[in-house]
Amino acid sequence: MSQFWSDIVNTLTPYVPGEQPQNRDYVKLNTNENPFGPSEKVFHAIDNFDRNLLKRYPDPEATKLRQSIADYYQMDLNQVFVGNGSDEVLAHSFFAFFKKNKPIAFPDITYSFYPVYANLYNIEAREFAVKDDFSIDIQSITQDCDGIILPNPNAPTSRYLELDKIKELLTLHSNKVVIVDEAYIDFGGESAVSLVNEFENLLVIQTFSKSRSLAGLRIGFAIGQAHLIEALQRVKNSFNSYPIDQLAIVAGQAAMQDVAYFKSCCEQVIQTRQWTHKQLESLGFECIESKANFILAKPLKHDAEKVYLDLKENGVLVRYFKNSKISDYLRISIDTQDNMKKLIDALTVIL
Amino acid sequence: MSQFWSDIVNTLTPYVPGEQPQNRDYVKLNTNENPFGPSEKVFHAIDNFDRNLLKRYPDPEATKLRQSIADYYQMDLNQVFVGNGSDEVLAHSFFAFFKKNKPIAFPDITYSFYPVYANLYNIEAREFAVKDDFSIDIQSITQDCDGIILPNPNAPTSRYLELDKIKELLTLHSNKVVIVDEAYIDFGGESAVSLVNEFENLLVIQTFSKSRSLAGLRIGFAIGQAHLIEALQRVKNSFNSYPIDQLAIVAGQAAMQDVAYFKSCCEQVIQTRQWTHKQLESLGFECIESKANFILAKPLKHDAEKVYLDLKENGVLVRYFKNSKISDYLRISIDTQDNMKKLIDALTVIL
Repeated sequence: MSQFWSDIVNTLTPYVPGEQPQNRDYVKLNTNENPFGPSEKVFHAIDNFDRNLLKRYPDPEATKLRQSIADYYQMDLNQVFVGNGSDEVLAHSFFAFFKKNKPIAFPDITYSFYPVYANLYNIEAREFAVKDDFSIDIQSITQDCDGIILPNPNAPTSRYLELDKIKELLTLHSNKVVIVDEAYIDFGGESAVSLVNEFENLLVIQTFSKSRSLAGLRIGFAIGQAHLIEALQRVKNSFNSYPIDQLAIVAGQAAMQDVAYFKSCCEQVIQTRQWTHKQLESLGFECIESKANFILAKPLKHDAEKVYLDLKENGVLVRYFKNSKISDYLRISIDTQDNMKKLIDALTVIL
Repeated sequence: MSQFWSDIVNTLTPYVPGEQPQNRDYVKLNTNENPFGPSEKVFHAIDNFDRNLLKRYPDPEATKLRQSIADYYQMDLNQVFVGNGSDEVLAHSFFAFFKKNKPIAFPDITYSFYPVYANLYNIEAREFAVKDDFSIDIQSITQDCDGIILPNPNAPTSRYLELDKIKELLTLHSNKVVIVDEAYIDFGGESAVSLVNEFENLLVIQTFSKSRSLAGLRIGFAIGQAHLIEALQRVKNSFNSYPIDQLAIVAGQAAMQDVAYFKSCCEQVIQTRQWTHKQLESLGFECIESKANFILAKPLKHDAEKVYLDLKENGVLVRYFKNSKISDYLRISIDTQDNMKKLIDALTVIL
C-alpha cells in the first residue's frame, strides 16, 4: 500500500484469471477457450480492413457490430450494448444496476469475478447456497436484495437452468434487475434473450470469447430492453467513449454473421464433451452433467489438487480452485478430440 | 431514467467525443488524430500474427507491449501500466488516486472528460482558472485538494508548461498524486517521464491515438513509480483482466519500436502546424502558440460558431465548443499539408 492510494485500493482483492503460461506449450484445458480458431470470414474481415484507417478513432457506438448481434437475435439496435469483453460489460452492469441500498445476490459457487465487482463498487454481496448437487433452487433466493446475477449454465459447476426456471426467477423478482450471464449458453442451453421483450428487468450478457472463438479480441455484449441498455451507455460514455477497436468491430461482425461455422464448432464441442464425460467416468471421476464447454469432475479416489499438479507436470493444464467448496473437483475445458484424448491418456498414466 | 437504474446513473453527464460522421467524406480536423497512417511495421506485425490464436485470451499483463514502452523511455517494466485507450487509464487513475476526502483540482479549461470521471466516481472537482492568455499559473493551484490533473500541452488550449514548471508543481504538492496527461507531448514538448524516478507523486499518462497513429486500436499507458502502477493494476484486475487485445498488443509494440517513423510523422505535423498558424493569422485569426497537433484559433472579425458551421457545409470538420470560455475559438487539428490547404482555401471563400 501507499499513502497515495485511495482507501478503496487497499481493500481490493483482484480476480485471478486462469494461467496463461508463456514458457511451455501445454494442452491448455484451463480457460474454457474455443478449440477451434475463428471463422475464415473473420480473417477475411481483418485482411480487408483498410489499415490506414487505424489512425482514426473507431465508431464510438460500434454500430455495425451491435447491428450484427441485433440481427442474429432479431432484436432492435437499441437493445444491444457492447463492451471490451463481457467482463467490462459485467463491471458496468454492477455499477449501473446494483449500486443501490440493498445487497446484490449471487450463488455461493459461481464466477469468482462477481464478488470482485461488488467490492470494487462498494456493493454488499449476499450469496445464496447452491444445493449439494450444485443445482440452484430459485425459491431459495432472498427477496432482501436489489438485484440478482447468475451464470447460466453456472460456472464453474456447468449446471443449467431451463428457461421456465429463469421465467420463474424474473417473475419472483420483477422489481429488480436480474442478470443472466450466458457466457456458456451456446453449448447446449437455450438463451434467455427470447424473454427480453417480456421482462423489463432482464439483462442477458454474452461473450465472443467462448462459442465465437474470439477471446483474443475482447468482445462482450448485453441484451435487454432499451431502458437498461441506456443505463449501460451512460456509464460507458462516462468511462471510455471507444471501448471496441476497429479490428474487433469488423472481426466481431464477421464472427456473428458466420452462423454455420459457429454452429458446427459448438456441435463438435458438445460431442467431444459427451465422449470426455464417459471416459472420465470410466477412469473413476464423478462428472456433473454439463451444458457448457467444460466439465466439473471429481476424482473419487484421488486428491484433486494432486491430480491437477500431476497433469501440469505431464503438460496438461486444467483449472483447480483451492480453498473453495469445489476443491475436490477439477474444471476441465473441452478442447479438440485429439487434446481430450491426450488428457485421458495422461490421466490413465497418473491414476 | 428508470426505476432499475442505480441513483448515480441519473446524475451522469457523459462525455461527448468529436463527431465521427459516417455519411460524408469530410476533411476531418476535429479529433486530433494523426494524418499519417501507422508504421509499416504495424501492418507487418498484424499480418504476421497467427490469427488462429485469436481464440485464446491475450496475455493479461500485455507484457510485450509494456516492455516496448519501458524500453523507449528506459524505465522498468513495473513502472508501466497499459489500458484500453488513455481514457480507460484516466478513469482507473481517478478511481485509484482521487477517490479521497478532498476535491481534485484541474484547470477550468481542459479535457472535458475530467469532470465526467469525477462525477462517475463521486469525487468533488475543484477547477482553477487559467489566465486570460490560457496559460497556467502553478502558484494559483489550491493546496486544499487530494490530487491534481492537467494535460501538458493543455487541451484544447494547446498551452505548454516547461518541465521546470512541472517540477515546481510536483514539489509544491509532494503529498498528492499529480497526473500529467501528455496526450500531445510528442508534438514539440518535453515529457515529464524523465522526472518519474525523482518524484514519487508523479504519474504521466500518454496515448497511442495521436503521435503513434493508432487511435483505432485503443492503447493508452501510464508511467510512474511502482507503487502508483500497483494501484492501477489492482483496479484494472478488479475490472477487466484482459483490456488489451492480441492484435493491439503486437501492433502497439511495433508502433513503439519504429522510432524513426514516429519522429518523422511528428516533425511533419510540427512543420504543417507552423505553416497553418501563419496562414490563419493572415486570414484574421488570433492563434494560441501551440505545442500540440492542433491550433486553437479565434476568428477576430467573425462568429466562431458560424465559421464552424460554414466550414462543415464546405466539407471541413473542425471542433467548436459551445457554451464554454472558448466559444470564440475553433480547435483545428493539424492534418496533411494538402488538407490544411483545403481548410485555408475554404476559409478564404467563407470569410
